[in-house]
Amino acid sequence: MWMILRNVPTPAFIVDKARVQRNCDRMREKAHASSVIFRPHMKTHKTAEIGRMQHGGAIGPITVSTLAEAEFYADRGWRDITYAVPIAPEKLERAYVLSQRVDRLNLLIDSHEALRAIEESSHTFDVFLKIDCGYHRAGVDPDDPDSEQLARAIMRSESVRFQGLLTHAGHSYNAKSVDDVRHIAGEESAALSRFRALLGVDEIIRSVGSTPTASVVETFSDCDEVRPGNYIFYDASQIAIGSCSFDDVAVSVLATVVGSYPERNSLIIDAGALALSKDLGADANGGFGIVCDERLQRLPLKLVSISQEHGKVEGNVAHVPVGTRLRIVPNHSCLTAAMYDVVHVIDRDRVIDEWRPVRGW
Amino acid sequence: MWMILRNVPTPAFIVDKARVQRNCDRMREKAHASSVIFRPHMKTHKTAEIGRMQHGGAIGPITVSTLAEAEFYADRGWRDITYAVPIAPEKLERAYVLSQRVDRLNLLIDSHEALRAIEESSHTFDVFLKIDCGYHRAGVDPDDPDSEQLARAIMRSESVRFQGLLTHAGHSYNAKSVDDVRHIAGEESAALSRFRALLGVDEIIRSVGSTPTASVVETFSDCDEVRPGNYIFYDASQIAIGSCSFDDVAVSVLATVVGSYPERNSLIIDAGALALSKDLGADANGGFGIVCDERLQRLPLKLVSISQEHGKVEGNVAHVPVGTRLRIVPNHSCLTAAMYDVVHVIDRDRVIDEWRPVRGW
Repeated sequence: MWMILRNVPTPAFIVDKARVQRNCDRMREKAHASSVIFRPHMKTHKTAEIGRMQHGGAIGPITVSTLAEAEFYADRGWRDITYAVPIAPEKLERAYVLSQRVDRLNLLIDSHEALRAIEESSHTFDVFLKIDCGYHRAGVDPDDPDSEQLARAIMRSESVRFQGLLTHAGHSYNAKSVDDVRHIAGEESAALSRFRALLGVDEIIRSVGSTPTASVVETFSDCDEVRPGNYIFYDASQIAIGSCSFDDVAVSVLATVVGSYPERNSLIIDAGALALSKDLGADANGGFGIVCDERLQRLPLKLVSISQEHGKVEGNVAHVPVGTRLRIVPNHSCLTAAMYDVVHVIDRDRVIDEWRPVRGW
Repeated sequence: MWMILRNVPTPAFIVDKARVQRNCDRMREKAHASSVIFRPHMKTHKTAEIGRMQHGGAIGPITVSTLAEAEFYADRGWRDITYAVPIAPEKLERAYVLSQRVDRLNLLIDSHEALRAIEESSHTFDVFLKIDCGYHRAGVDPDDPDSEQLARAIMRSESVRFQGLLTHAGHSYNAKSVDDVRHIAGEESAALSRFRALLGVDEIIRSVGSTPTASVVETFSDCDEVRPGNYIFYDASQIAIGSCSFDDVAVSVLATVVGSYPERNSLIIDAGALALSKDLGADANGGFGIVCDERLQRLPLKLVSISQEHGKVEGNVAHVPVGTRLRIVPNHSCLTAAMYDVVHVIDRDRVIDEWRPVRGW
């Protein structure tokens, strides 16, 4: 009934189901053994199928990166959702409508303006306060007195139910060693615990994220909830950071050689920026992904540049003629997965399913 | 009936119709004044609406980057299509089916293997031979004796109708000045003319592309057909190269400030890698796009990094609170446009239409 991998038109996004299952099980078991709430992120895959695999086949608490994802999962039975990007005031009405269809929709805020917008909306929301644990993207500085003021304003406000503190150690993606990542994991939890102690409210949740930190720690400690996402697939960046091994990576982009130029040691594949994304990943010298053969064995070739529909590979290409099928392990699986309307799910060399992710915002 | 820009949910891809019209008219008139075939590329916008605008409201010859685009335009009445990526042998059957529905589908080949695959397909195709004019991505070296052999094999083959020579001066995107671009434009045409003279077949077409070269030349000379694509939108890269002015750029990404951190001179917008693409563009120091206010006036702010759904802006953000709407002129409009299922078309501050591009392969 299903195709073999050899017959899938290229470029295609290939997901090895057994590897996803193994990655899902390992992280879920670690969370359960650590007695923390497991609220995995959906943003990497955006499919209902993997959402269930992350909770051992059940519906459980999840994290999302867009309201479109939140609505997609709510439509399919999910009941407890954290929207983990600071909410734009203009999106509150849409978030309110969604919140009425589920048990809980947690919003993220990190400013007096956002709190004021909620208070002016005449609705009540569950909220987390976003804390900056060193990544310096979003979140308030836990050592700034104004952050305590904002937290106390949230605690006083009648428009919000204060669920807890949330942080994302995105700087773990720039770590140079596993020891670095472990150090960041410690800071991540410590920032929330210290700030919670300052507030003197032990009952609120300390929620931490990031696949590198969640992958390298033995157990989750000094926190109440974990939200990794990328771990279901992993990618070339996670290998470079030390979060996973090559054999843990569950995704690749299937491509075909459409031009071979041995005289200039290069070839062209039909997977470019729209099939891979332009993320350079954690290893800037590694090119735009790891070049492998059809059976996912690494080849001594480098994907040196990509334009819209072309990928340029360099190395000794004398034995790689036009028509050869290659597989590229992407640098950043979250961004690569988002380029596809269909995911091809394989069991060894056989396509056993096609999954359709949610897109847009 | 239609929304004003202020009410469009963010992130959104905004197209200024009057600017697209002006860009379309200027390039079409230059092509007509130069008496060359005008075969604009669809890959930047992938919409039926702009496809018609490029030919002054009519259906005309086009260039595409995927078979999905070719099928989309064939479904909507286009009859003369060049698929300008070297064809993978596995795609020949699909291309044949499509070729039977249109007047002409030109394929691109640049190898003996591809020619052999066509001959073994038992179908006949219109083909262009791809020539490398210095970009060194796809195409054969016009000075290599083997390239002449391949061209003569194409001329002898009963499976192909030899339409001409095609090149893409992609290296014009790395040019440092308009003079550089003009020099590359000269090489682009010269490579094809020299090779055609070598073959002694004056009746075949010399087809050239690239928005930088097509934008800076006064007239198209020493060629028979032109295939620019990006010119309908332009972008921050084209400004940096000198192909266009800031006021020629017809696209921007509308975003909302969701976090403002004056104490660390930064803010977060809700447009990240999935709303902008990670293309660093021609000016690597420029960040991930040009930050403008809602009326498209440049601001002294820099979009320094982007992750999946966050864009981090640095500068003096004291007067840019949460909820402020910004517009980002993207580095590379082709890749940014491809991230959206819907294009918001505006006339000044009013949304007058929504267009739906084709996606996938």
